[in-house]
Amino acid sequence: MCASDSPLQGAYLKYQAELVDAGLLLPSGVPGVYGLSGTFEGIIERFEDYVTRMGEHLSPEVVRFPPLLNRHSYQKTNHLETFPDLMGSVHSFMGDAKAHAALMQKKANSEDWSKDLEATEVMMVPAACYPLYPTATGTLPAGGRTVDLRAFVFRHEPSADPARMQIFRQREYVRLGSPSEALEHRDYWLKRGEEMLRSVGLDVKPVVANDPFFGAGKKLMAASQREQALKFELEVPVASAEKPTAVTSCNYHLDHFGHSFDIRTADDKVAHTACIGFGLERIALALFKKHGFKPEKWPTEVKNVLGL
Amino acid sequence: MCASDSPLQGAYLKYQAELVDAGLLLPSGVPGVYGLSGTFEGIIERFEDYVTRMGEHLSPEVVRFPPLLNRHSYQKTNHLETFPDLMGSVHSFMGDAKAHAALMQKKANSEDWSKDLEATEVMMVPAACYPLYPTATGTLPAGGRTVDLRAFVFRHEPSADPARMQIFRQREYVRLGSPSEALEHRDYWLKRGEEMLRSVGLDVKPVVANDPFFGAGKKLMAASQREQALKFELEVPVASAEKPTAVTSCNYHLDHFGHSFDIRTADDKVAHTACIGFGLERIALALFKKHGFKPEKWPTEVKNVLGL
Repeated sequence: MCASDSPLQGAYLKYQAELVDAGLLLPSGVPGVYGLSGTFEGIIERFEDYVTRMGEHLSPEVVRFPPLLNRHSYQKTNHLETFPDLMGSVHSFMGDAKAHAALMQKKANSEDWSKDLEATEVMMVPAACYPLYPTATGTLPAGGRTVDLRAFVFRHEPSADPARMQIFRQREYVRLGSPSEALEHRDYWLKRGEEMLRSVGLDVKPVVANDPFFGAGKKLMAASQREQALKFELEVPVASAEKPTAVTSCNYHLDHFGHSFDIRTADDKVAHTACIGFGLERIALALFKKHGFKPEKWPTEVKNVLGL
Repeated sequence: MCASDSPLQGAYLKYQAELVDAGLLLPSGVPGVYGLSGTFEGIIERFEDYVTRMGEHLSPEVVRFPPLLNRHSYQKTNHLETFPDLMGSVHSFMGDAKAHAALMQKKANSEDWSKDLEATEVMMVPAACYPLYPTATGTLPAGGRTVDLRAFVFRHEPSADPARMQIFRQREYVRLGSPSEALEHRDYWLKRGEEMLRSVGLDVKPVVANDPFFGAGKKLMAASQREQALKFELEVPVASAEKPTAVTSCNYHLDHFGHSFDIRTADDKVAHTACIGFGLERIALALFKKHGFKPEKWPTEVKNVLGL
């Protein structure tokens, strides 16, 4: 831990301890992996209903993916190139009884048995819209598609910050279509998302952002992403007011996924895509921080918006 | 594939194709991993509401765990001993830029890069109640605890049977307490579960069952579990009427989890545990099979029970 991180680290640990004491988070013993209380889950459900109402006029297709992605599809993205340190690869035991006996012996000796496993056909989902694109290969209908998604996503970044979970849910509206359709979607939801977060009493600030790229090219990739203003985040104070947390992101992917998965518009151009992703656990954590741990005591206008 | 499996395999593939054609399942390319349509997800939500209403009089604590379990907690169970072939172990890349370059080279050469990864602190959840027990270490309140859970669970068993998914959700009521409290809970929910499935028009049959143990001792373990009548399943026709599918299971674990996680009753005995687990995707699949793919056309009495 850097010395300069200490006050921030203290803020993370303090808010985490408060949430655990209040019974809202159940620690699993692994940083960033928690059980959620019924009260916590209830706020997520209410916020999700709000997202549904706000998107109804778009008549989105609804799809719900599990937290697993086809490994073959994963390899068609550049996630292994750009975020290898965040990935989750699912492995299992595929040996016979003799190999199992060896595995058991390793466990008994407290040795690492994980290298005896084999990679399965699946990876953890890195972002809620990743599983969608491989299913969209082919030609889009005229006017493109708008899809409503929710999925658990995994990021291997153990942290004391309660808002930086290793596994959490994103609710997304994704647009697949022409460049202007994708960009309009991103810009529409950037504005709408900010209004939504304000309407539940959060002090939100939109900022140009970049993804946490890995390796030698990371500075260049981040600079390019920022220069093109492809990614915006809606930041809100959670554990710390000085270092607010991105609770929602609005992304224009250009033709990145269109190319990777051969998705084409009705007029046979490579499709562009864009999405808004609401970080559901983070939004709930921001609401608990702002309004307190008892939703029944939240401001009337916030309760009205959320139907509490 | 055994020759004797062929008609069954045909029934699986036929129902799977119908579900995909109707847009209820979106294939991911991996057997047993699907996206679900809004209609499919809606039936799960309605059935979950029904489960909530039927358990309300027990005033259960509500906890929602993500699909990941602390690896250390996992090792305290006997899952690695008894179901190693079903496990999911989450691995990630933890190397430097040089190691990453080697990883990229393997990907470029279509070599297996998965052995370059390291095991993370987490495993996929094998059953919805597994993450609960490690959080219950210590002494239970007088009268024990009743907990309402829902989680995605993973089982590495790729299959053409749409009801045998690799990743699916279980909704559970778990009891932790004395032997009689645990057994009463199991027996109560076995009866109540059967009534619930009947009330939505399913042809349900309760059967004594055993888990699919691995390895040399599997026959002995299965026989012992059946002789003690520890596991009951509620079977319903899904893809095949001849070979019905377990859509719900009711289990009495004796003091297995109480011992593993040092859970004690108020009078300082090792706690016993029991659970009912509703397999949500399987129940939805059974309903679609029985009543058709359009919930608005389901029988009025079923729609009334589900609030459709």
